[in-house]
Amino acid sequence: MANTSDPSSAAAVRVRLDLSYDGAGFSGWARQPGRRTVQGTVQDALARLLQLPEPPRLTVAGRTDAGVHARGQVAHFDVAAQTWARAGVRAVQRLAGLLPSDVVMHAAQVAPDGFDARFSALWRRYSYRVCDDPCAMDPLRRHDTLLHRHTLDLPRMNEAASVLTGEHDFAAYCRRRTGGTTIRRLIRLEWSRSEEVLAGGPPSGPSVAVATVTANAFCHNMVRALVGALLAVGDGRKPIRWPADVLSRGVRDPAAHVAPPHALCLEEVRYPPDGELGARAMQVRGARVP
Amino acid sequence: MANTSDPSSAAAVRVRLDLSYDGAGFSGWARQPGRRTVQGTVQDALARLLQLPEPPRLTVAGRTDAGVHARGQVAHFDVAAQTWARAGVRAVQRLAGLLPSDVVMHAAQVAPDGFDARFSALWRRYSYRVCDDPCAMDPLRRHDTLLHRHTLDLPRMNEAASVLTGEHDFAAYCRRRTGGTTIRRLIRLEWSRSEEVLAGGPPSGPSVAVATVTANAFCHNMVRALVGALLAVGDGRKPIRWPADVLSRGVRDPAAHVAPPHALCLEEVRYPPDGELGARAMQVRGARVP
Repeated sequence: MANTSDPSSAAAVRVRLDLSYDGAGFSGWARQPGRRTVQGTVQDALARLLQLPEPPRLTVAGRTDAGVHARGQVAHFDVAAQTWARAGVRAVQRLAGLLPSDVVMHAAQVAPDGFDARFSALWRRYSYRVCDDPCAMDPLRRHDTLLHRHTLDLPRMNEAASVLTGEHDFAAYCRRRTGGTTIRRLIRLEWSRSEEVLAGGPPSGPSVAVATVTANAFCHNMVRALVGALLAVGDGRKPIRWPADVLSRGVRDPAAHVAPPHALCLEEVRYPPDGELGARAMQVRGARVP
Repeated sequence: MANTSDPSSAAAVRVRLDLSYDGAGFSGWARQPGRRTVQGTVQDALARLLQLPEPPRLTVAGRTDAGVHARGQVAHFDVAAQTWARAGVRAVQRLAGLLPSDVVMHAAQVAPDGFDARFSALWRRYSYRVCDDPCAMDPLRRHDTLLHRHTLDLPRMNEAASVLTGEHDFAAYCRRRTGGTTIRRLIRLEWSRSEEVLAGGPPSGPSVAVATVTANAFCHNMVRALVGALLAVGDGRKPIRWPADVLSRGVRDPAAHVAPPHALCLEEVRYPPDGELGARAMQVRGARVP
């Protein structure tokens, strides 16, 4: 009897998932025994949807830490084609009914050839929200906005940030793991006052500073460590040159605090055109994995 | 010895407070014994700030129900001028340190002559947020957005709403209290797809419908009852004429469900120019109080 849940069979398909989540209630993305994780929650919902004896194993674009949110997370899993076909065209709607309210599945569909959620990605984009005026904080956004009690000088922060972009060894801004390179290409690191408009109302004002942070990939804690260093420049505790000095020394500086997770959100993962997915994945896998 | 906390003394001042709060953790605005309320929380913080033996009594523009938020709430209290002077120019910053993170005080300052947070107001504006596509819900906004599982036809809802504007007896859309009129002037009741832009990212899309509801004043449950009736029109359960029919019958219709509180927010309270505050308060007090 054929095992319809065996993804290694010839008739396997790769399914791409697009999802958002509120990180507050999760011990991060990665499955851990005895903890509520996004991966575990989604895998369990997929096992129920597809009636699989074992949850399918998800590969993710951005392994978010505990408390970090995502609005544009991408993951994939492999499954027997006939098992996926059985789920039907309304698979994503049925999945919504199996997920808790802090995870929203936007799309679930068969991926093009060569797609790999992790290795095919060209870049990841994160946002980090900071309100620097305690009297202007929106209490409804305190779950995804850091309150910083000193006014931030954004031009100063952007000057410090501009030196960090490009390809560097970000060891000083990463929690080191054994193996693997810490060389990354930081494409954009820029602060701006929020353009957000409250529906029907006045703009929320210039009290929210948002960092846009884009890189080919990030190592562990990298966005939050960069944000922490720039906050110290923005409120005047550190000189403009300091974040670049830390970078060039190549070791963690205890004065560069890792910013809290709740204001960080994975906004978008960008992939190349379908025809280049496989080549991109092979290239990245070769460069990144030791 | 003069009692410096006696606001009825000749040297009393009236202080206007501008504040926001996340309603989720409160049993509404109005102080109730044994419950966590916004009024109680703010009064207690004021008593500590001003070192008053008894909390000052707050008068509010919009008495929000349990779970309802505010971004533009206004209140006032009277206090001896020298007590207020002692609090100093940084009173609002000090107040911030005494308030929990779900209440934000934007301003606290001596009000112009004739000001009354409740009776001087020209109008109140509320918003109500509804996402009508389960696959497009932003999980980070689920605390202030209603998920409605059927697509809403906004032109249909706006046609139904337009008939409700103007001065009417809204008894059919109010929880009746003994005494007091239920005649109100509904100035604006309009739905639009959210123009909200996620900072640095793509627009959140047309999946969030926001009602803007403005009236000279509201009776209890009025916004949520109106929203509930219009949702039934928007998803096709009721004909366009139905909300107006309910209005003209003048009694609550069990089919008009009161919409949940967590998607409702008091956005703004508008007052006349300073010179007209007192006259406005006298006029409204005469008309509204039995």
